[in-house]
This record gives sequence, C-alpha cells and structure tokens, in this order.
Amino acid sequence: MKQSFTDRLAAIRQRKNSVLCVGIDPDPDKLPPSLSGVGSIPDQVSKFSKEIILSTASSAAAFKFNLAFFEALGKSGWTVLQDVLASVPSDVLTIADAKRGDIGNSARFYAKALLEDLPFDAITLSPFMGCDSVVPFLGYAGKAVFILARTSNSGGSDFQTLLVNGEPLYMNVARQALTWSTGLPGIVGLVTGARDTAALASLRKLCPNTPFLVPGIGAQGGRVDLVMQAAGFGPILVHSSRAIIYSSSGEDFSSAASVAAEKIRMSLQEAHHKSIRAS
Amino acid sequence: MKQSFTDRLAAIRQRKNSVLCVGIDPDPDKLPPSLSGVGSIPDQVSKFSKEIILSTASSAAAFKFNLAFFEALGKSGWTVLQDVLASVPSDVLTIADAKRGDIGNSARFYAKALLEDLPFDAITLSPFMGCDSVVPFLGYAGKAVFILARTSNSGGSDFQTLLVNGEPLYMNVARQALTWSTGLPGIVGLVTGARDTAALASLRKLCPNTPFLVPGIGAQGGRVDLVMQAAGFGPILVHSSRAIIYSSSGEDFSSAASVAAEKIRMSLQEAHHKSIRAS
Repeated sequence: MKQSFTDRLAAIRQRKNSVLCVGIDPDPDKLPPSLSGVGSIPDQVSKFSKEIILSTASSAAAFKFNLAFFEALGKSGWTVLQDVLASVPSDVLTIADAKRGDIGNSARFYAKALLEDLPFDAITLSPFMGCDSVVPFLGYAGKAVFILARTSNSGGSDFQTLLVNGEPLYMNVARQALTWSTGLPGIVGLVTGARDTAALASLRKLCPNTPFLVPGIGAQGGRVDLVMQAAGFGPILVHSSRAIIYSSSGEDFSSAASVAAEKIRMSLQEAHHKSIRAS
Repeated sequence: MKQSFTDRLAAIRQRKNSVLCVGIDPDPDKLPPSLSGVGSIPDQVSKFSKEIILSTASSAAAFKFNLAFFEALGKSGWTVLQDVLASVPSDVLTIADAKRGDIGNSARFYAKALLEDLPFDAITLSPFMGCDSVVPFLGYAGKAVFILARTSNSGGSDFQTLLVNGEPLYMNVARQALTWSTGLPGIVGLVTGARDTAALASLRKLCPNTPFLVPGIGAQGGRVDLVMQAAGFGPILVHSSRAIIYSSSGEDFSSAASVAAEKIRMSLQEAHHKSIRAS
C-alpha cells in the first residue's frame, strides 16, 4: 500500500529536520541578469528554477510551484513545468499551487493533468464550489489537496473571516473539508496564512492531524516563532519564496538561495523546539 | 475608446437575438468516432472544437472554453486552445472558464496569459481570496470577469448559501464584487446557476446592470422560462454545452449541434419575450 501524504511528510520532517516549503515562482522580470545569455525566456525560467531546486533541496521538505508563472510562458509552459518538476529529488514533496475549483468532468481532468500526468504530490484548491469540486482530487493514494481556508493576502478578510453561525467562514470551510476525504485515499490539508496566527491556532485545535500549508512569513509579515507555536505538533509546511529564490540577483543566486533556505529551515526548527519546550 | 464588455454584449444581443453561450468542453472520451482518423487526440479536439464553433456561431452570443479540457492535453494544450480561439468569429464573445483565484503577481500573470496573450474577452474567477485576487483582471478595457456567486453544482450549497448577517454568502459576494471595478476599465459580472432562480432574482434586484453568466439549464435541470423571468431586462448569457456539442455522436455532429444551438437560442428568446409581456 502506498504511503499517505501525511506519512511521507512526517518521514521527511524526521529525516531532514525541515518543514520548509520553497516556492518556485519564476517571474521573468526578476531573473538574475547573468541568465540572459541562456536563450529564450522559457529556457531562462527553466534553468533558474532547476538551479534553485538543486541548491535548496537539502533544506526543503517541499517545493510549491506557482502555476501562473508557467502558464504565462504560453505554449512552452507545460514542457518547462514538466522538465523542472522532473528535476526535484525524490525526498522533497511537490505542490501545484493552482488554486483551482471546478466540478465534475472539469475537476477530473484537472486532477489527471496535475496529479497523474505531471505528477505533483499535492495541489491547492479553492473551497468555494464545495465538496464535488474537491472529491475528484482525493482519488489518488499518497497525494493531498490543500484547501484554501485563511489566506494571507489583504483580500483574505473579504469573505474568509465573515461570521457564519458565530464563527469565521474559514472554520466552517475546515470543518466541512475534513469530511470530504472519507473513504478516499487522498488527504485533505489546509492553507492558512502566517499573519493570522489566531486562525492558525483555532484551525489546529479543530484538526490536530491535518497538514497545514502556511504562506506569508518574511516579506508578507508573518512571524516564524508565532507560526510554529500556533501550529503545535501537527503536520505543517511553512512556505517561503521571494526571501529565498531572489536573495541575490547576481551570478551567486543559487548559492545565496541555498544559504537563505538553510537559514529559514533552521529558524523554523528552532522556533518549533522553543515552542515545545515552553509547552 | 474601446467599447465595454457590457456594451459589446448588448450590441450582439440586439443584432443576433441571442443570449446563448455555447460551452466548448471537448472531452476526448466523448468525441464522435468519425474523428478518430484525424490524428492525435489534440488534433481531434482541435478539429471537433472548430467544427462546433463554425456550425453554432450564428446562434451564439458567446463561447465559453473550459480550460480543464485543454490543460489535460498536456504540452499541446496551449497551442490547441490558441488555434481554436482564433477560429471564433468576431461577433461572438469568448470566455475562459478558468475559475482561478490567486493574488499579486500570480493574478497579474494569469490575467496577461488569458486576457492579453490568448486573448479571451472574459474569464471566470473564484471570489474566495477577495478583492486583490480579482482587481488585476479588471485592468483590461472591453473585458470582463465573471465572479462565481451561486454555482449550479450540488456542492454549490456547501458555502455559498450560508447565512452571513442574515443573507446568503452569495449576496455578500455580489455586493462586494460590484465595488471592485471602481475606477477600472474591466466589468464585473457574476456566475449564478439556473437551478436556483430565487438566487438569480435576488442578485438581479441587487445589480440590474451586471452581466450574468448562467450555467445549468438542460442536463443540470434549470428551466429556461424561469431563468429568463428571474433575469429580467439585465445583461445575461445563458450557458449550454452538452445538449449542443454532443447532440449527435455521428458524422452529423456539427449539423446536429447547429440545430440544437438554434433551438436553444430561440427558446431563450421566446422565454424572454413571454416574461416581458407578462411583466
């Protein structure tokens, strides 16, 4: 029987002392000038992404690929994504940051494209269309879906924190989403941003064994110590992108990314140990 | 100055007597066997989609492309989508059914890929991540975003109808979404399914001049007469896919699609005239 996503995550955390998820968000406007001789923009994106992966893999528990940047490459996008994904070592999980949400056949086609053909270990999904927009992604053993619950962007408060029966909508999302995997091999995880640690703590209390994907530390203002404290002992991936992949725009971009990733990995470990000592 | 999406929609409705949006959802498992000699699956999808477009364009106000089916073609997907999109006559609007929702740079990249590079006239978006996930799509004159408000799938009731301050979440979504285009050239439209005509009527009352995209007639159980009555005089596109594009699996698939599309166009017109006579 295939190991579940949660078990794979736990094994990686144990072995690599890492909960760091490195974001592969290759914005053509931010690539190091030293890559401009490499060829076309898609070639540059491919080379940049692969070098970042090679140099940060030892510190990373997961890589999250932002599909927008690959789709923006037009007809080369899929091939570049496929090539870059294939360069990820087997001891790092891969997440397609797609934030899709569709139903019936459409969901089945997206699921096949992203969890089977490519193949990612997990995908981010919007909950807005409900159960039948998520279930088709839960048919894959060893894989997970991360449902948006409380996102770290400013608009995240437009609807997610509205009160429904006396509690924020994101709690309702989590409560329902947890039931969607019943009888299915896939795992339901949640996306909950680093800036709202009260939401993170409430969600952890509601679902102690659910994998959390936590964006928003660093540039977006979330604090590592508060995040790791709120997350407690449960499974977690803490996401960082810009602070790692764009830490240098010089020729040393990959070694600088390596140093930055290791620094964040260590700060997450320290924060975790400090919080368990205090608890 | 470029004509707004709403004005273009009104002009087409006037000229073609049509509010029909034909769904281009090319499922490889449902293609007519007569196309199997055409070549690869992507070639078959391309030929099928183009023939459907050619044969239904005179009855259609818009074509909605379900991007899942094109993404499932892997590396050929983008090229096929580009080719098929280019075959749409200029008097039919095009909608990318993407149901995306992402923020900042990611949203900007999706917007550029789908409203500029390809280029669609409109895109469907999920509201769950709020204002900053939609605004980047509203920077394009002549274009529109259709925000999911009340979807016609069974899971549409999981969150969209939850009560927030005494009214369903979809009303709150509409109320907020309408403000997002302030000062921007793009138009905010809403997706509201045919099965919940009470929701459709409430939304129309709230926003009489907002374009509605209404899926769910036919196979999904929505009634044309009730939809057109609830929609009143406001701008609307009523979506139908399977009942048109798969109306025959024989060699006559395109002529059968043409007949089916014209029949639905006429039933929508009749229902509209009946409802205005009764009002």
